[in-house]
Amino acid sequence: MKAELISVGTELLLGDILNTNAQYLSKELAALGITVHRESVIGDNPDRLAQLVEDAKGRSDLLLFTGGLGPTGDDLTKETVARVFHDELVLDEGELDKIRMYFECRGGMPHNNEKQAMVPKRGEKIENTCGTAPGVLFRDEGCTAILMPGVPHEMRTMFERSVRGRLMEMAGGAIVSTMLHIFGPGESSLEEMVGDLLEGANPTAALYAKNCEVAVRVTARGADEKEAAALRDQLTARFRERLGDLIYSEDAEGLENVVVPLLVGKRQRLATAESCTGGLLAQRITSVGGASEMFDFGAVTYASSIKRRILGVKPSTLKKYGAVSSVTAAEMAFGIQREAKADFGVGITGIAGPGGGTADKPVGTVYVAVSTGHRVWVKRLSVEHSERSRVRRMSSQHALDMVRRLALGLEIPDARCFGRHAAEEF
Amino acid sequence: MKAELISVGTELLLGDILNTNAQYLSKELAALGITVHRESVIGDNPDRLAQLVEDAKGRSDLLLFTGGLGPTGDDLTKETVARVFHDELVLDEGELDKIRMYFECRGGMPHNNEKQAMVPKRGEKIENTCGTAPGVLFRDEGCTAILMPGVPHEMRTMFERSVRGRLMEMAGGAIVSTMLHIFGPGESSLEEMVGDLLEGANPTAALYAKNCEVAVRVTARGADEKEAAALRDQLTARFRERLGDLIYSEDAEGLENVVVPLLVGKRQRLATAESCTGGLLAQRITSVGGASEMFDFGAVTYASSIKRRILGVKPSTLKKYGAVSSVTAAEMAFGIQREAKADFGVGITGIAGPGGGTADKPVGTVYVAVSTGHRVWVKRLSVEHSERSRVRRMSSQHALDMVRRLALGLEIPDARCFGRHAAEEF
Repeated sequence: MKAELISVGTELLLGDILNTNAQYLSKELAALGITVHRESVIGDNPDRLAQLVEDAKGRSDLLLFTGGLGPTGDDLTKETVARVFHDELVLDEGELDKIRMYFECRGGMPHNNEKQAMVPKRGEKIENTCGTAPGVLFRDEGCTAILMPGVPHEMRTMFERSVRGRLMEMAGGAIVSTMLHIFGPGESSLEEMVGDLLEGANPTAALYAKNCEVAVRVTARGADEKEAAALRDQLTARFRERLGDLIYSEDAEGLENVVVPLLVGKRQRLATAESCTGGLLAQRITSVGGASEMFDFGAVTYASSIKRRILGVKPSTLKKYGAVSSVTAAEMAFGIQREAKADFGVGITGIAGPGGGTADKPVGTVYVAVSTGHRVWVKRLSVEHSERSRVRRMSSQHALDMVRRLALGLEIPDARCFGRHAAEEF
Repeated sequence: MKAELISVGTELLLGDILNTNAQYLSKELAALGITVHRESVIGDNPDRLAQLVEDAKGRSDLLLFTGGLGPTGDDLTKETVARVFHDELVLDEGELDKIRMYFECRGGMPHNNEKQAMVPKRGEKIENTCGTAPGVLFRDEGCTAILMPGVPHEMRTMFERSVRGRLMEMAGGAIVSTMLHIFGPGESSLEEMVGDLLEGANPTAALYAKNCEVAVRVTARGADEKEAAALRDQLTARFRERLGDLIYSEDAEGLENVVVPLLVGKRQRLATAESCTGGLLAQRITSVGGASEMFDFGAVTYASSIKRRILGVKPSTLKKYGAVSSVTAAEMAFGIQREAKADFGVGITGIAGPGGGTADKPVGTVYVAVSTGHRVWVKRLSVEHSERSRVRRMSSQHALDMVRRLALGLEIPDARCFGRHAAEEF
């Protein structure tokens, strides 16, 4: 099945909006095994839109539209596509009632909105549970057009509730997929580790790298969902065998979304002491709802005087090893853990750049330490040739992964372990 | 002049990549007064690409391509467009030397990369200062095609250095623009304040809302840059008259990028005590290089016990007013300012959601306080019907804006001012 995406809206052509809808739908269609041959963006101009729809209808089996279902005179997608698909629009009293009800406590329905209740005579309407404009579906000469709103959350909800199922039927059989989230190896190392598993046709697997981590999407198609799931699970198991605890999660993206529930479940608490990450780690942890059950205190200790006073880092440590050192990181971790009476204390100190690098400790040198009270694990990172934001992000990734590993009783690769008096053992 | 954007790459059709290039170019062309009529994404398929280029060449004056200039067999944009534009590609020895040099310390040039040195015989090559693939320009039958790399930073650098000037010439005259960054009013209030200034044809002004703030882009066209700049400055001055200190910056985006240099310049220091924002404010401040000159200490005090112990918030305050109250925010601000010996202390406490709201203090209720040691200013925010991330972002925006206003001696709208013993005055 050949598909095309058509996004309608002059605001897209002016660059006022980033077209995230196109990426979302591309991914979803890829997961359904439907090939997208072309994506177009066109303004709110009925002649140009009609020309594009004519062309697309001639060369593709499925057209997915977003945008142009609003109440204003500019919103012409439905009227234009109806014409090209030889259908007509009729008033749907049920939809009109819904729209009226929506506006009842908002000062009454503007006259304009009535046109949102127009639905195809031959085609179908598609329920919109988040807004006033229903989606619509037209069929003509072997081509199907599905029109969805342009507002991303309305579109996504409609797609998930009502469109995906229809497409699955059209594509025949069932398609299921899962995402494995991996922290540790970079994209190319991962490709070396699992390259041979990326080559199958069904199930398929694809690598994605972003935000200082990597993900693998495993997708399978079968006659029904059970058959598809069995195929997917077979391949997923092979990735699990190969990658083991490098996979931090299936489906939940973001290490913080794994670490927070993990510690909440174990009734363990975490505290953070950050220098170069400047609060990024605390911010990621507290971005998860319910973090207050495992997080009491985070300190952003930029100045050495604050590292001494709040965290109890020893003046002799700062003098002998410097503020950016494994011993300082270890003492920060011990200090915050003690101060917050937490189960885990994290200490991060490093050089995020652009200034501050030296020959021994270039920009990108970061020490990440996690203390459990009696012992502390410290990693030295070299996030070279990177921007400040990447150095910071990567440091917070390592910190979260170290906590995850300690909470699960896993080894921490490339970390050194010290006792309470790190400086003496160094 | 009618323009089209064409992005080439199967990875875009699969949704692996968000098409930020299209938005960037749309904005830039809009600023140059060039109308984009259509944007297309097409895969690495020479027949489909050729068909699209034929069609586009017939209906538009300018085609801007991104992607498909790489060294692999899939990268066919240059070859395909050359054919449609009746031009041919010849080897450019200078480019080949550059590519060889680039690979010299990387183990030698792979044979594939030689094709990146092919340039148009009739058309032009466009220098790439960030990568190995030069851009190219073809002209045929009144249509100009410009091909740039797909890697965003290579494309942007090439656009800024070599393409924008060419387009300006093609569009005739000079175009200049400026961006006014505004914090305070929402998009619709701003539209009421300056709606009449948004209607001109030259200079033009357009509103953009994102990340809990609004921006106005003022663009003018003139016979030369001087004339264009004079027109732009006239309209900019009218916005300044109307909006005054609501404009926090011209061109530098992000309140942290204004507040950090402002305090560094005044040799003033800031400290932060955050509850519901969980380190977001500290993180924004320390994301700016050089923040260590104005920032020593940020505390993320989630637990009441930590608010008491680290910040000295009074048990009686917590008991009488609660952790989410203006008095607690004020005492947090005083506490961190004293503890860090800073000029300004910020305290933020609130309910970011999704849980924790009450009838009196629903989700989105946040108190932001800024202390100068003797006095404290407190604002109550109601960021209603918003996600956790928006409540947090908006709170950090208000905090930064309050600091900016205090540092500049401006009034803080909607804030109450207390002395040292906020609880007694309340």
